[in-house]
Amino acid sequence: MVMPSSSRPAPAAFGDPVEDVDTPALLVELGALERNIARMAEFAKGKGVRLRPHGKTHKCATIARAQVEAGAVGVCCQKVSEAEAFVAGGIEDVLVSNEIVAPAKLRRLMGLTAKARIGVCVDHPQGLEALIAAAPEAAQPVDVYIELDVGGGRCGIERVEDGLRLMDRIAGVRNLNLTGIQAYQGSAQHRRKPAERKAAIEEAVRRVVALREALIRRGAGPLIVTGAGTGTFYLEAANGVYDEIQPGSYIFMDRDYGDNEWAPEAGRFENSLFLLTTVMSRRASQAVVDAGHKSHGVDSGMPAVAGRPDLIYDRPSDEHGEIFPAGPGAALPELGQKLRLIPGHCDPTVNLHDWLVGIRDGHVAALWPIEARGAFS
Amino acid sequence: MVMPSSSRPAPAAFGDPVEDVDTPALLVELGALERNIARMAEFAKGKGVRLRPHGKTHKCATIARAQVEAGAVGVCCQKVSEAEAFVAGGIEDVLVSNEIVAPAKLRRLMGLTAKARIGVCVDHPQGLEALIAAAPEAAQPVDVYIELDVGGGRCGIERVEDGLRLMDRIAGVRNLNLTGIQAYQGSAQHRRKPAERKAAIEEAVRRVVALREALIRRGAGPLIVTGAGTGTFYLEAANGVYDEIQPGSYIFMDRDYGDNEWAPEAGRFENSLFLLTTVMSRRASQAVVDAGHKSHGVDSGMPAVAGRPDLIYDRPSDEHGEIFPAGPGAALPELGQKLRLIPGHCDPTVNLHDWLVGIRDGHVAALWPIEARGAFS
Repeated sequence: MVMPSSSRPAPAAFGDPVEDVDTPALLVELGALERNIARMAEFAKGKGVRLRPHGKTHKCATIARAQVEAGAVGVCCQKVSEAEAFVAGGIEDVLVSNEIVAPAKLRRLMGLTAKARIGVCVDHPQGLEALIAAAPEAAQPVDVYIELDVGGGRCGIERVEDGLRLMDRIAGVRNLNLTGIQAYQGSAQHRRKPAERKAAIEEAVRRVVALREALIRRGAGPLIVTGAGTGTFYLEAANGVYDEIQPGSYIFMDRDYGDNEWAPEAGRFENSLFLLTTVMSRRASQAVVDAGHKSHGVDSGMPAVAGRPDLIYDRPSDEHGEIFPAGPGAALPELGQKLRLIPGHCDPTVNLHDWLVGIRDGHVAALWPIEARGAFS
Repeated sequence: MVMPSSSRPAPAAFGDPVEDVDTPALLVELGALERNIARMAEFAKGKGVRLRPHGKTHKCATIARAQVEAGAVGVCCQKVSEAEAFVAGGIEDVLVSNEIVAPAKLRRLMGLTAKARIGVCVDHPQGLEALIAAAPEAAQPVDVYIELDVGGGRCGIERVEDGLRLMDRIAGVRNLNLTGIQAYQGSAQHRRKPAERKAAIEEAVRRVVALREALIRRGAGPLIVTGAGTGTFYLEAANGVYDEIQPGSYIFMDRDYGDNEWAPEAGRFENSLFLLTTVMSRRASQAVVDAGHKSHGVDSGMPAVAGRPDLIYDRPSDEHGEIFPAGPGAALPELGQKLRLIPGHCDPTVNLHDWLVGIRDGHVAALWPIEARGAFS
């Protein structure tokens, strides 16, 4: 199941001025993207932790390769079909930071081991049995991570003894190595105050330490503790417990992360992702743009209008959004004018697009297919 | 810019039992779909109105052809790229029920007139000038509809005199015919009570009549009044003013339309669209399924669990959703079990998928590419 690149035509051609890009389209400011990639790589190196960026954010093999070239050990992703796209794109170490339980999916995952080091998570005895049943088909051992619920309350084991039971069952199974603990505190990422995020990660660390110590007491070898996102990576990297961090959104940022009160020790990341949109209807009270929730994710709230704090995007529908003045005196854009939106949430926005249009000095300098767009299986 | 069919592998093979379909996947119960298509066609015929179903719902040329075969005059859609997909799929009459103002898009639209009758909306003098500039490239005259704001407060002219001005400017322009009035009351579709919807459409009709009479007094020929959606089509069809109805969601239905209090005269439409999902993590208090908002639209609220009113889907994230008991005594599904979700909103859900998996008698009987998936330009 190799993924060919997107079948939808690109919204621009190399060298086009950005004003000529067809809309809606996802622009990536390449300078900002490159600085973000370098900053996180330097941060991880400085802290002595491994960096495994989350590929669910960009779904783009070109960006994954740039992250690895900058020092990442590989990428993580959430779905087998995403892993397929990254392995096809040349990434040689991919962790599916999620549970995979369907036999057909596990067969596909085992198939990837012929070309790459593959990891996957378990949190349930029955899911582990399905993985064990598929393991003989692997071309090399699979890294198995026990996922621990560190406060998100979604996936992951809840009790240390559940982890010990999984460890016992993995022991001695050919092609399965107990490699580490997946410990991602997703619900902490957008707590607005640094102190709230710090408290959440302290609790996560307490839970991780309890599980890790119990596994080691029972005879586990060295374990990699992996997790963290763009809202908290500087906390996981600073406590001596996490060996690896998994931030994804830092490459693009979005309005929701921008609303976090940023901690000084997290460094600085720039908005590099913008949705270009055109005003296609206009009246005295509002402008209507051609970007609705079929072209950007509104699950985490509305996008911001880049460079125009005097404008508000609201009332998204399938194919439209409305632009209003934020206060008296704001000049609404005219019919045909283009605006850049900072998406409310970068991950689901990227998933709606087939292409990233790389911009440098106001011109199209790259056209990257989003190979794992729609890869949700 | 012909659109090839999807590049992502189908989640099933012909003849597979439905339990074997890879998840998440969009299932279409073909019997229910066929009955919905036939019912709306019969309704329109019985009322003596033209039926032009909205293709933005399904984005699938196969379904568009079935609608035309059942009696529809053609389809409508919102984007030039959708029109391209439908014309490539053999639909010979396509109305873009939206304003198109970018010169490059208008050139593409004019290109389609070599193969199909094409219509488009205008609501602004400057947008009309862009259309006039592109019109010489058309191979046959383009149907121009003046869009009237009938209460939605988004696109469309607000005043009768604005319509007269557009009519005057269209007059005599080669390849542009003033064909009618686009009058869609989008904000009325999900008002829960039939009386609320009725009041909204009565107001829409008042505005349409005022514009139509003014255009005719000024010398316009016969005008087609077109509009209506799945929540109100029986109202527009009953008043003698609308000549054409544009419902889209009736073919699939969704949880949001299901929450409307249905009017007896609207007939009965069945849920034919389901998102198949698998439980991939399970604890005592909840089951976690592999379908988050990257595989179904949550802009209109949560999906329902088909056939299981004792279960609730909530807390969607990018790749996960959580299933909770609706009350005491509900048995949560086990790990690996599959559920069918009724999407909260069918249109953006379909836009996330590359394939519709047609089911008949519990087996895969059709695999339809969603040709206009991601066609937002």
